Amino acid sequence: MTGLPLAAGSVAAEALVDLFVVLVAAKIGDEIFKRLRQPTIIGEILAGVLVGPAVFGLVDLTEVLQVFAELGVVFLLFWVGLETRITDLQEVGSSALRTGVLGVLLPFAGGFGVGLALGESPSTSMFLGAALVATSVGITSAVLIDLGVLGSRSGRTIIGAAIVDDILAMLLLAVAVGVAAGGTDVVGLVVVVMLALAFVAFFALGGTAAMRKWPGTLAAPRFSESPLLPAVILCLGLAALAAEIGLAAIIGAFLAGMMVAETKEQHPVEEEVAPLYAFFPPFFFVAIGMQIDLGALARPGTVLLLVGVTALAAVTKFVGAWLGARSLGKAEAAFVGVGMVPRGEVGIIVAGIGRASGVIGERMFAIVVGMSILTTLLVPPLLRILARRLPAESAQSPEAAPQS
Amino acid sequence: MTGLPLAAGSVAAEALVDLFVVLVAAKIGDEIFKRLRQPTIIGEILAGVLVGPAVFGLVDLTEVLQVFAELGVVFLLFWVGLETRITDLQEVGSSALRTGVLGVLLPFAGGFGVGLALGESPSTSMFLGAALVATSVGITSAVLIDLGVLGSRSGRTIIGAAIVDDILAMLLLAVAVGVAAGGTDVVGLVVVVMLALAFVAFFALGGTAAMRKWPGTLAAPRFSESPLLPAVILCLGLAALAAEIGLAAIIGAFLAGMMVAETKEQHPVEEEVAPLYAFFPPFFFVAIGMQIDLGALARPGTVLLLVGVTALAAVTKFVGAWLGARSLGKAEAAFVGVGMVPRGEVGIIVAGIGRASGVIGERMFAIVVGMSILTTLLVPPLLRILARRLPAESAQSPEAAPQS
Repeated sequence: MTGLPLAAGSVAAEALVDLFVVLVAAKIGDEIFKRLRQPTIIGEILAGVLVGPAVFGLVDLTEVLQVFAELGVVFLLFWVGLETRITDLQEVGSSALRTGVLGVLLPFAGGFGVGLALGESPSTSMFLGAALVATSVGITSAVLIDLGVLGSRSGRTIIGAAIVDDILAMLLLAVAVGVAAGGTDVVGLVVVVMLALAFVAFFALGGTAAMRKWPGTLAAPRFSESPLLPAVILCLGLAALAAEIGLAAIIGAFLAGMMVAETKEQHPVEEEVAPLYAFFPPFFFVAIGMQIDLGALARPGTVLLLVGVTALAAVTKFVGAWLGARSLGKAEAAFVGVGMVPRGEVGIIVAGIGRASGVIGERMFAIVVGMSILTTLLVPPLLRILARRLPAESAQSPEAAPQS
Repeated sequence: MTGLPLAAGSVAAEALVDLFVVLVAAKIGDEIFKRLRQPTIIGEILAGVLVGPAVFGLVDLTEVLQVFAELGVVFLLFWVGLETRITDLQEVGSSALRTGVLGVLLPFAGGFGVGLALGESPSTSMFLGAALVATSVGITSAVLIDLGVLGSRSGRTIIGAAIVDDILAMLLLAVAVGVAAGGTDVVGLVVVVMLALAFVAFFALGGTAAMRKWPGTLAAPRFSESPLLPAVILCLGLAALAAEIGLAAIIGAFLAGMMVAETKEQHPVEEEVAPLYAFFPPFFFVAIGMQIDLGALARPGTVLLLVGVTALAAVTKFVGAWLGARSLGKAEAAFVGVGMVPRGEVGIIVAGIGRASGVIGERMFAIVVGMSILTTLLVPPLLRILARRLPAESAQSPEAAPQS
């Protein structure tokens, strides 16, 4: 029904319908999985599978929904940053670094080796390796918040290591793209690496130090009545800047959250950001589900390959991260190892770039996306079980996030 | 700088930059106008002029920004609905209806007559008339909230009358489009009218009655922990439904707010919606400013015509609304009359449809948009002066909205 002409042709009116359908689907999935005592994000991802093109086709992943999904993971990581003090990260710094680096090397080597063994070209194999690398900080943090262990020692190790992962994954991706294009610009690559490290160090150390020095900056009376918009502006600004220099936007959002965590306004900001944190992230999880193409996975050989690649991704990441986190003790090392396994959005993005540049085909794309989804679906129930075995010291969390 | 390939080509990364620029500009405009003791929305609209194509061209009005702008006015009207009890509207019902109807007839007759007098065709003249009709509920409510008189008798009369206005404007637009297309489908028009009236009556009377009967619906423990997402889903759902049947989305959002206002959860929802209300509306006001094309107005004859059309729009609306609100007494009738003058987004939409269908030209489009903006800029300072002369009974408001 088109009705009066004011509505006809209005992009905004169509977008309202999409947003409505996605939120309703997310909420239903969320409530069902809450009753099943399973992680609610799985309910939201499966809701995305149902409303997306794979099943009912109620909603397409339009540009508008992509932006809402991106804001979802941006506000999610901003929230995680708000719960993270730089001193907390420094405490777990060395084990997080080891976990991140080893958790990248093994999956990359595994993906690259298997690609070559399957007879793929070196550049295709590099893409496969790069797609197996990045832990999804967004999904992992949502599960950690859900379990109430975001602030625990192993929770902080996972967050720190996942950030390291994201940076390394983007560097590997740059190399893979360079190789696929017929050669890597070594000087350009070094510049990008320095830029990324400088960005993270500048805001993680300098930014938080500045906020500690002037803790009333965000809501000085001469500047703003409420700290919400200044905080959101800082979040969007650092997210956009991170994306501009080639890092993931979520790294900027996380650093912005860490900066706000050092101000006097941490608690008011948390309270006011909570509704944004309830509103946007469901779009991220539903969008992940919408990208599952059941058809591409239906062919027999593909399913086998998918299972193999998923097992490879899970085992290499677990072993690498576990080796890195060994110093935390057995129970925590296992928790960290499993917590690093979900790939989520970054693997999908890497695969998308590989497909767009013609380096990997339709089938390999479907497999990488399927692997990202499977690792995301399998890990939360496992983490829930392992969380019970964490030492009591480690299992406490400063504050559980409000979720509707 | 493009950096690593993950950022390159990402629509989401570009959108983050746009959202950041718009929020920063809005916040700066807001703060400057707060210090000048002027309505902050004017600061935000002027910020839009500056960042938009007219001056610095930092941001284009992309599809994503249009959706954020639409959500801005949707959450604004949801907020206004939350502050409105159906009994409050019933109290002012007859004067609001008179104000709305007379406030539509006079501007339409004026625009149509002047169009014919200028030698325009009947269909062009009808479009001009229709574009002069609709009061901007969004802008008017923001000013009323700003002045703290949203809950006063004249405030409620303005809101009620503006809703009547919106409905009549859309009907006139349907007629104008029909005439331009070579004939009006009378049966179809009657169906649309009945549908619009049924929609408003169903949710304004039936919806609020249902919420009064089951006041715990939104956050029953079996349904949701927090009432925020159910409330937002109701808001988006009614907004989308209103748009689908040819009404403005904001009418659905307003009705959803009125329904939530009858539940036990009104106050928790208000608190949790406040951050969404702080985050989204700036996009609406900045987007209005971005649509001002200073170049199209620069030609000498155009400026004269713009001044004439603006005066016509202001005087006919003031006189019509003043006649309708006379029973409220002199001071309040003047306040209501002036409060109805801003045209804002609806006039711009009407003009856009007229231009898209070729009935009005580039110049008339620029004039209508300019008139919408001018009436929006001129009214808030006037209203502020008139608000001081309101009777004390009328000047109280239940609660001022939190604005950052």
